[in-house]
Order: sequence, then structure tokens, then C-alpha cells
Amino acid sequence: MYNVDVFRIPASSPSDTSGLAALMESGRLDPADIVAVMGKTEGNGCVNDFTREYATTALAHLLARRLGSTPQEIERRVAFVMSGGTEGVLSPHCTVFARRRGATAAAGSKRLGIGIAFTRDFLPEEIGRQAQIEETAAAVRRAMEDGGIESAADVHFVQIKCPLLTSARIAAARARSKEPVTADTYESMGYSRGASALGVAVATGEIAACAATDAAVLRDWGLSSSVASTSAGVEIEHNVVIVMGMTRHADSGFTIAHGVMHDAIDAGAVRRAIEEALASSGSGGAERIVNVFVKAEASPDGLVRNMRHTMLNDSDINSTRHARAAVGAVVASVVGHGMVYVSGGAEHQGPPGGGPVAVIARC
Amino acid sequence: MYNVDVFRIPASSPSDTSGLAALMESGRLDPADIVAVMGKTEGNGCVNDFTREYATTALAHLLARRLGSTPQEIERRVAFVMSGGTEGVLSPHCTVFARRRGATAAAGSKRLGIGIAFTRDFLPEEIGRQAQIEETAAAVRRAMEDGGIESAADVHFVQIKCPLLTSARIAAARARSKEPVTADTYESMGYSRGASALGVAVATGEIAACAATDAAVLRDWGLSSSVASTSAGVEIEHNVVIVMGMTRHADSGFTIAHGVMHDAIDAGAVRRAIEEALASSGSGGAERIVNVFVKAEASPDGLVRNMRHTMLNDSDINSTRHARAAVGAVVASVVGHGMVYVSGGAEHQGPPGGGPVAVIARC
Amino acid sequence: MYNVDVFRIPASSPSDTSGLAALMESGRLDPADIVAVMGKTEGNGCVNDFTREYATTALAHLLARRLGSTPQEIERRVAFVMSGGTEGVLSPHCTVFARRRGATAAAGSKRLGIGIAFTRDFLPEEIGRQAQIEETAAAVRRAMEDGGIESAADVHFVQIKCPLLTSARIAAARARSKEPVTADTYESMGYSRGASALGVAVATGEIAACAATDAAVLRDWGLSSSVASTSAGVEIEHNVVIVMGMTRHADSGFTIAHGVMHDAIDAGAVRRAIEEALASSGSGGAERIVNVFVKAEASPDGLVRNMRHTMLNDSDINSTRHARAAVGAVVASVVGHGMVYVSGGAEHQGPPGGGPVAVIARC
Amino acid sequence: MYNVDVFRIPASSPSDTSGLAALMESGRLDPADIVAVMGKTEGNGCVNDFTREYATTALAHLLARRLGSTPQEIERRVAFVMSGGTEGVLSPHCTVFARRRGATAAAGSKRLGIGIAFTRDFLPEEIGRQAQIEETAAAVRRAMEDGGIESAADVHFVQIKCPLLTSARIAAARARSKEPVTADTYESMGYSRGASALGVAVATGEIAACAATDAAVLRDWGLSSSVASTSAGVEIEHNVVIVMGMTRHADSGFTIAHGVMHDAIDAGAVRRAIEEALASSGSGGAERIVNVFVKAEASPDGLVRNMRHTMLNDSDINSTRHARAAVGAVVASVVGHGMVYVSGGAEHQGPPGGGPVAVIARC
Repeated sequence: MYNVDVFRIPASSPSDTSGLAALMESGRLDPADIVAVMGKTEGNGCVNDFTREYATTALAHLLARRLGSTPQEIERRVAFVMSGGTEGVLSPHCTVFARRRGATAAAGSKRLGIGIAFTRDFLPEEIGRQAQIEETAAAVRRAMEDGGIESAADVHFVQIKCPLLTSARIAAARARSKEPVTADTYESMGYSRGASALGVAVATGEIAACAATDAAVLRDWGLSSSVASTSAGVEIEHNVVIVMGMTRHADSGFTIAHGVMHDAIDAGAVRRAIEEALASSGSGGAERIVNVFVKAEASPDGLVRNMRHTMLNDSDINSTRHARAAVGAVVASVVGHGMVYVSGGAEHQGPPGGGPVAVIARC
Repeated sequence: MYNVDVFRIPASSPSDTSGLAALMESGRLDPADIVAVMGKTEGNGCVNDFTREYATTALAHLLARRLGSTPQEIERRVAFVMSGGTEGVLSPHCTVFARRRGATAAAGSKRLGIGIAFTRDFLPEEIGRQAQIEETAAAVRRAMEDGGIESAADVHFVQIKCPLLTSARIAAARARSKEPVTADTYESMGYSRGASALGVAVATGEIAACAATDAAVLRDWGLSSSVASTSAGVEIEHNVVIVMGMTRHADSGFTIAHGVMHDAIDAGAVRRAIEEALASSGSGGAERIVNVFVKAEASPDGLVRNMRHTMLNDSDINSTRHARAAVGAVVASVVGHGMVYVSGGAEHQGPPGGGPVAVIARC
Repeated sequence: MYNVDVFRIPASSPSDTSGLAALMESGRLDPADIVAVMGKTEGNGCVNDFTREYATTALAHLLARRLGSTPQEIERRVAFVMSGGTEGVLSPHCTVFARRRGATAAAGSKRLGIGIAFTRDFLPEEIGRQAQIEETAAAVRRAMEDGGIESAADVHFVQIKCPLLTSARIAAARARSKEPVTADTYESMGYSRGASALGVAVATGEIAACAATDAAVLRDWGLSSSVASTSAGVEIEHNVVIVMGMTRHADSGFTIAHGVMHDAIDAGAVRRAIEEALASSGSGGAERIVNVFVKAEASPDGLVRNMRHTMLNDSDINSTRHARAAVGAVVASVVGHGMVYVSGGAEHQGPPGGGPVAVIARC
Repeated sequence: MYNVDVFRIPASSPSDTSGLAALMESGRLDPADIVAVMGKTEGNGCVNDFTREYATTALAHLLARRLGSTPQEIERRVAFVMSGGTEGVLSPHCTVFARRRGATAAAGSKRLGIGIAFTRDFLPEEIGRQAQIEETAAAVRRAMEDGGIESAADVHFVQIKCPLLTSARIAAARARSKEPVTADTYESMGYSRGASALGVAVATGEIAACAATDAAVLRDWGLSSSVASTSAGVEIEHNVVIVMGMTRHADSGFTIAHGVMHDAIDAGAVRRAIEEALASSGSGGAERIVNVFVKAEASPDGLVRNMRHTMLNDSDINSTRHARAAVGAVVASVVGHGMVYVSGGAEHQGPPGGGPVAVIARC
């Protein structure tokens, strides 16, 4: 049995840790309890976005000072997932998840629980391929166990941070006569996100393990997970996994629900997920929403509700930036503000052009 | 007394005129009746966006061939307003307005009417200053008269295309010892849009003429028009004015209503404007909407509903592109698709961070 | 026996044809003699660069008016190659090649000659693959014959304009169950340029036809042509081929020479090509240079002279834009100005990270 | 009397401090001796470039650990100037300057000396105005004294890091009813660089103090310094000043010379500055060059050697990025590689469109 706490904290810049520091100083949050941090930082969210790494470093240094540890040890213990890109009305912030062993017996009803896990480092040529799928699936299962989330039906959101290919990593693979899945660094982000999402789908049973092959990645769009959210970043070489779900083993004041946006303007799906989260327990309205977690992408067929979009042909702005701006605004228009977690690149995460949406609310 | 017709036509590229050609060939539209075309083209919507000019040229060539005229004559007769930028889910298209003298007497109820006018060419140093304000106000009054729109209360949308400063134009002014309002070409777009919007506000009586001075432009944010929509483009040196409103003198099958989005995520304002347009006459729902016209901008105080946005600090993507992506998606989530007219840069058009929204519907 | 004339004409915008019009009005250039136009336009040079198509359209309309023809007929007769991207100091312009049958017998010495040819339209799935290689090789041979350029040793520059994949073209192929070489539109430009360059290399005998397979494209960097220059553009579906070389059959006042830049800062190669062109005939210095034609690319190993560059990891600016800015400035610093033809994307054109450089000079 | 040492160190990413760490571990560099670090980082070099701040933080943490100090104390003692933007062939790196009191008497000949100083923090409304000019001039004089550089004729390069305006800073000023010099954050970088450069020019006597007024900044292009190099960054609120020059009081193994590039392609000026530096003492060639320091900008009249450039009209890539790519490649083509310090935005630094160039060489 454990307690869970969740805090959403605004950031005035990538290195701003003042909000978290204040929370710890106030006594409301014990740094030793922090298990995961999911942030939106204001870089371009693409290959050369160093704001993700910078924000992680700043947070790890703060926690290391508080806990008498080193930043390296902190990064091994806490699952940091920084997603770059706050286009449009999106507002930089982070969501901090804390967990503490509690003495009480299992509650009668399920509440929000959280578990984390890490894979081993991947070789450049493993990214976007079956090795990444399999390691991810195993890590998701470990994270479920870590969080006491007993069945796939109780899993509502699986956040993964995964690596990408850089010029240096591609060269390193080729020096060993190994060819990575792509030589385009921006494109490698999609492969890594896609393979990681298929790993989630395998773990939750949404697809069969035998279907999740090299050939399926970014090809077989019929395969997807409705709870996977994967972000690629230059700062890591392994996958970081956070599973959120409902569990009898958590005595938390929070609940979680999820749905699927069928396209970039599916405001109805956002509204329904919010309603479900609010209905599950407690009373009151939108002020109980802690955060909304959404994946966004430009529809790969070049259409949104049969109207042509230009996101995939724009060589000045990558399509993930367009998609975050659009979906972020749709979610903000429902929630009432832009301090929500909308992350770009939804390969194998929900239907093509759409993506999962999860809502955490106070009970 | 005249008839009005309005057509929304998808474009597969900036030079695609096949939709308009088909409409003319089918006999549904007489090219001689066309008075205005408002388009969304897929360039960056900023200084070096040549898709606006290219689309205008393609349309003018098509009409010239049909009417045995020259493209130059067509551009003097028809008000072309191409707004660049189809970020996010926005879909390239144009809206064609046709007008034809009718024999019948004035109808009992008001219907959509349209009038157009042009100012003289501006000198570079007049752009963003009082000369542009005054000439615009006069042109709006001429356009109202042209359309038989009798009072300011009947004006629901005033679309203006206005020039911007380029390096060459700035140099030309300085060669005559005149200093333009800014030496930053991108920034000049805002000045031109702002002065033009103040011109609309003077014409509609929303502000006093004496308040609309050089010093007010992009400074006194208390001054604005709730019906102005202004777009800057490199392809012209004068202002093109289109006034849409309700009039007893038009026997059209269309109605128009407008409202004001108070910020970029004000979906409620969009819904209310649609409801008002649909309620004014006729029956049926969203399928009657012909188009929605909206102005968008990044809130100049750096906040949307008290949450920090990063649009104004992004040196990779201009804030007008962010704003179109965000507001376009919000409007699309209400209307049900992205083939709507959302234009960036709402200086003195609605409140800071917001902008006018107008809806044309079939009766 | 024929005469050749070459003119370099500045452009004040993509649609500016005033320089060419003035040249024709002055009687110095007969529009019927024009066989090829190679231009630099100021778009982004990537997928959504419509300035190439716009400039071509403007020139074709001008010539059609002059020759009592249609723009479509002009585009079938004249080889238009517009290369987008004038980053840094590069200056928008075009180079016009004219050819006229002459009465005189073959000259004793070789002079600049020019020939053109076109391939058939390619299916989307043929782009970047063997079909494109083979058709291009055949077209290069036809263009050599057209220009009376008798041997591969006399070929100094082969300019090709080739198509790219858009979302619509990819969807069209998939609707027929054909998978294009890539689903990334920007990346398709590289495949099309690479396959076209291999076609040139086959035609000139620089590589064996059997080596130029699907698998070689963008993989086997040992295969390249030292005279190929290929540009992709959204406006065409076939390859346009211009071969420039020395020939006994041309009575032109021009000469051409070429070399190879071994990397992006190889100013020495530019200097040597200029010296060779100037030395071949005539007297005088740099004022005799008509234009310099260069291909540029970001070194695929991420290094320039062993120093790391960041062009391939920049998700805000595509690497072709970086490369044109850099190489354009190097060439300009040698030539003395930026009105030179530097085109991005040198896949299989010269060594990796480098590219061919050709110089046309007056005798 | 003091010794000076200078090291150029490659960086594999903004946070890579391994080169500096290795230098300290090898005993070749005592961390206590470091007085200044000038780096090129791979962000966009514009408003939202956090790589400058991130690199500074990483270096300050490293030195703090070595010296048993705090990062804050390190930043107060060492002048860190990170210049963002490694477009084209430019290669991320930093140059570390160390200084140590020596026992020997004054040498007969002058050698490279270095001095640093800091201004107080500026209010947002002081940036780009006279207060910034005056404080900078005073700080330059203090830095000359600090380095024992006795006359303005001995000053060869003055590097300044200066603040810029963000949305938050502008709002803060307006809350106190103060209007900053501009509301455009990107434009504020130019104002801050310009005012700082005028401060250098006042200190060196290149211009009269009475000429350096608010009105002169970014207006009176006749006023400039041929040794100023100023970079704006979001991470500071004061000016950091580094003066490099020749002095009898330094017993260094280095010499410095400078010149002025008259435009972006003035390779001759780079060659002459190198020759002068190499000629002043010692023997041998280009391998003795430690680094070259250059300022670059897009010529404000829109022309380079009378040919139109498009850098100022490009709304997708800011002109400073274009200029660094172009000038960086020109310098690299002379030096033989791209690991040189080329910084964008040369307002009042050298002639319009050009900029100072300084060369440090081993004796």
C-alpha cells in the first residue's frame, strides 16, 4: 500500500526549478518520495532541442543537493521525461509524481497508482527495431508490477522517453558495419517513438508480440496502443517507462481516465475523458483536473476530416511542431488553459492522425 | 438591389484554379459577377511569402482569359485578399464573392451584402501611420456605399489587404530622406495591419478620428475594431477593402453575424457567432456554414488565461504562425474541419490576444 | 553549326521578368532562340518552395506572349531549371541560354555548346530508383547529341531538374499498392537528386550501368559524377536535362571548364576552375566570368576537415539551406559577388560533402 | 607582470565540458587561473537560445567542483561569453583564457594581455540606450586597466556579452510605466549589441562620448568601433566585458592583431589580419593560429557588392543566422576549418555589413 501525490508546477524557463524548490521547502513534498517528473520544455522538441536535457539536469541537481546525492544517482532513481515543444498556447511546466509507502490496508476502491522502469541502453542500430520493442514491453511489465497495477485494463497511460539517432551515433554504428534504421536524424525520432509504442501495445495485449516486427514499425498503421505516449530525446540512450493506472494498492487522492482523440480536432474525446475522470469519484468540476496528457501528430494521409493539411510538406516547420500547436490549442480550449502536456509524434499511439488522451483529477 | 453569391473552393496548391474554373464552366458562376476573393494560401504568411501573389496572379489570369481582359484590369476590378499561412489543420482554399444587379424590389429583411474599395498607393513612410489610417477610413466608407450597407451597425466584417515594408522600399524612402515607421520588415506587417484596423474603427465609429494618430499605432491597445481583419502582403502598395454586412439592398441567400474571441482559446465566442448566424434566418445546422473568418494573434502580454506562452520569444517560428496554428485548430474543432479563414496578426482587431470572428451561413 | 549566347540577369523577385523583357526589346536576344533558363529563386529550396514554379510560370508567360505561343508549349520547348534557396549572400537571378543555327563551317577550336532533353513523367514509386536512373542516362545522351557534344570528356556540366514526392503523390502510389522509396517529403528530394546524378554518371561513363541500382542510391557514396548537378522541385513529374560542354559544332563566344570542390570550404577548387576557364581562350580576368555553377551539401559524416558541423542535427533549418549559405559565401568570396548558381543537395554529385563546380567565361 | 595562456577546446554538445576537464587533469591548466571563456554553442543564437546559458552553467559547475566554490561565485569571477549559432561549417567550441601572476620583470616587447570587467545590472528600459553605452564605456576602461593594456592603440578586440529583452522584462518595465526601446524581443538583441558597441567606441576614443546618444543607436551608422564584438543573450542582465590587447605587462606566448571585414565576403581582410598576427613575432604558418574572432551581419542596405541579398526579408531564418553561415564559411575557407568564433549582429561594429576580425596566434 502506498500514497501517491501529483503536483503541476509552472516553469519560467528550462532551468527554472523554483516552483519545485518552494514545494519542498513548504514541507508539502518530500524529495525522497519523487518517482517521476513529466515536463514540457520550450525547445523545438526535435533533434537539437537541448532544453529537455537542461531541464532534467537542473532538476537532478536540485534533488541531489536536497538528498545529499549526486545528479547521476538521481537520474537513475527518478523517471524524468521532458517533452520539448510548447507551440501556440502551450505553457512550460512539469508534473511531479511522488510515492510513499503507507501503513493502511488496501482501500476498497481503486485509485491512481504509478510505477516506473528503465530498459538497458540501446545500440544505434537497435533503435526503431524489434530489440527496442521487446525491451520496452518487458520494462512496461516491470513498471506495472512496481506500481501494483494488476491488469492491462487498469493501465491508463504509459509514458516513455526514448533515444534518437544523431550524426555521431549513426557514424558509430556504421563504424561497426551496422546500418541504423534511417540516416535522417529527425526521422529517427519517429522510428524510436513508433517502436516504443509497439512495445507498450505488446505489454498491454493490444497487439500480439509476433506482429511487432521490424517491418511493422512506421508501416503497419493498424497496430497501435491507446495508452502509449512516447517522446524521443537526444539526452538518453535507453527507454524510461512510467505507467499510470488504477490500483487497489494505492491510497491516493487522485483518479485517472483515458480516451482516444480520433483526429487533431477531436475536442469531444477530450471532453469525454475529462468527464469520465471527474465522474469516477469525488464531486466538483474542471478545477479538479490536475493535468491532461495527450499525443499529437499530423495525419499521415495529409487530411484532417477530408480537408488537406500542409503540415507534412512544410520544410520550415517540422510537422510535430504544427501538430502540438494545433492539438494543444484544442485541448486548452476544453480545459480552459494551455498548461497541459501535449507531446508530438503519435506513431502507433492511437489511430493515425489522432492519439491517446489521459486525465488525472483529484478525487 | 442586387444578388450575392458566395462559394468556398479548396486549393490543391497556390496556383490551383481548377475549382473556380469548374464552377464557371458549370454555369453556376458568371466570372463577370465576381467582386472579391479571399484566400488562404500555404506560404509562411510573413514577409517572403510569395504564394499570396502567385495565387492572385493565377486567379487573375484565369478570369482575364474568361472575360477577354488582362490580369491587370482584373486586379483593378476584383478585390483579391490572399492571407498566407495554413499552419496546423488549416486547409488552403478561397472564398469567392459574386454580385449581380437584380430586378426585384428591396426585400423586407436584411441579407448579406458586400462592397469593395481601394485606396491610393502608399509611400513607404506612410505605412503604419496616420495617412494609412485616414485613407483606409475613407475607403471603408466608399465600400459600405458600394455594397448598400447603410449603417455601421450593419457592418459585420471588414477585410483589408495592406502593404508591408521590404528592404527595397525602406531604402527608397531613405533615399528621399524619409524614415519609415520601422526598419524591420516583419515588424512592418504589424504596423500596416494596425493602422489599417484603426482606419476601420474610425469608419465604423468605434473610435474617434482624433484618437487615431501615429502615436496610437501598436501603442494604445485600448483602441480597436471588433469587425476589422487586416492582412499584410508584399504584393501590393495600396489597401484593398472588402466590407461585408447586412443590407436591405441585397437579395442574397446568405446571412452574416460576428462576435469577438477574447483570447486564442475562446471557443465559446466561435460557437455563439455560429449560433447567431444560423438563428438569423433559415433552419438546419452546421452544414449551412459557408465560412468562418477569424483574426488571431499571440497575446502581447505573454499570457493566455494567466499561463505563460512562448510565442513571442520563439526566434525560429514567428508568432503569427503560432497563433494561426492555435486559433485555427480551436475554430476547426468547433466547425468540424480546417477549411476556415484564420489570419494572423490582430493588432487593434478585437482585444489584445483575441480577434473578431464572423460567420457567413446560407439562409 | 550553331551560335550560343549566355546572359545572366538579376531578379528583384520570383516573378520579375523585366530583365529578360528588356534584353528582348533591345534586340540582343531573340526569344525564339532560348533553349534553357537556369535560375536561383528566393524560396526555401525545399518541398514547399513555390517560387521555382512561380518564376517558371512568369518566364513562360512572357515568352508565350512574345512568340504567340502558350506557356505550356514554351515549357515543352525550353528547359527551365529553377533552384530555390538564396541563403546568405546568394543573389536571385537567372542564366539564359540561347542557340541559333549558324551558316559558317566548323571552327577549329571547341567552344561552349548546349543541348537539352526531357524524360517521360515518373510514377511516384519510380522516383529515387532505377527507373529514374535509366531514363536520366538516356536523356543525357540525347541532350549531348542535341548539343553536338561528341564525347563524355567534353561534358563539363549536366544540370537536371527532377521531381519530388508530396503527400498527395505518396498517397496516389499507395492507392495503387506501390510503396515510394520514402514517406518523408523532404527526404524524397535527396533520393530524386541522387538517382538523377547516378543517371548522369552512367551516361558519362563515370560509373558502370550495372552498379547503378536501387540499392546504390543514397547508400554507395563511392559512386558519383563530377559533372552532375541535380535539383528537385515540386513543379514537375519528369526530369529536365541540360548538358553543357565544349564542341566543335558551336560558334560561341564562350568557354566552360569544371572542377570538384572536395568539401564546403574548398575555395581552391573554385579558383582553379576559374583559372582554367579563363586560360582556355581569350585574355582578361574575372570580369569575363559569366557565371559559376556549384553543388553544395552538408558533409554526411558530420565533419568538415575533421571539425564537427551541426547542419544535419538542426531541426529548424534544413541542411541544404545551411550548405547553400556556406558554399555560396565561399564561392562569392572568390568570384567577388553572390550572383552565382549554388544549388543544394549534392548526393552522388562529387565526393560526399563536396560537389562539382563549373565556370562559363567569355572568350 | 603576468602570464597568459589560451586554449581552444572542441565541444560535442552544449554541456560537454570533457575537454576542459581533461586539460585541468593533465596539469596544463590551473582552474584558478581562468579569467574568461568565449564559446560558440549550437543553439539558434537568437532570443530562445538556451544553449548559451546551459553551456555556461555546465562550465561553472565544473570549475566550482574543482575550486571548492559555487557556480554563482565562479560566474562572478570568470567572464563567460557564449555566442549562439554554429550555422554552416562553424564548429562548436570554446576558447579559454588563463592568467597568472608572474615573477619576471617587464619584457621588452608587447604580448597578448587580457582584462575583464562587469557592469551593474540594467533595467529593461536602459537596454539599447545611453545608460548602457556609458556603463559599458566605463567597464571597458576598467578591463583595460585590469589587463595592463595601456592605450587604446593596443586594444585589438573587445568582447561583450549583453542582455536582451524578453516578454517578461518588457512587461516588468511597463508595470513601472517605463517603455523599453522596442517591444520586439529579437530586435532588442540588436539594440543591446549596438549600444554596447558604441560604449566600446567611446572607451577607445573612436567616437566622441557626446555623439553616443539614444538617438544614435541603430540610426547613425557612421558611428562604429573596429574592435568591438558584442553578443546578446537571455541569460544575463548586465554586460560582461573582455578586452584583449598587446601589453608590456604580459609575458605570454601569444600575439594578437586585428582588421576589419568591409563586407561579408571580404576574405582579403581575414588573410591580412592573419598575416599581421603571424608576422608580429615567431615563425611558421597557419598552424600557429589559435583562433579567429569575427563579427558578421546582413548588410542593412540589402546589398553585398551591389548584388541584392535576401537575408533581411527571410521570415523563416533570422538574418543573423544567415550572416553567421556566410561569414563563417568565408573565414573557414581562409583558416582551413570551421572551428572559429563568428558571432552574429555587428551593429556599430565595423562598417555596415562588415565587422571586426581579430586573430590570436602563438609566438
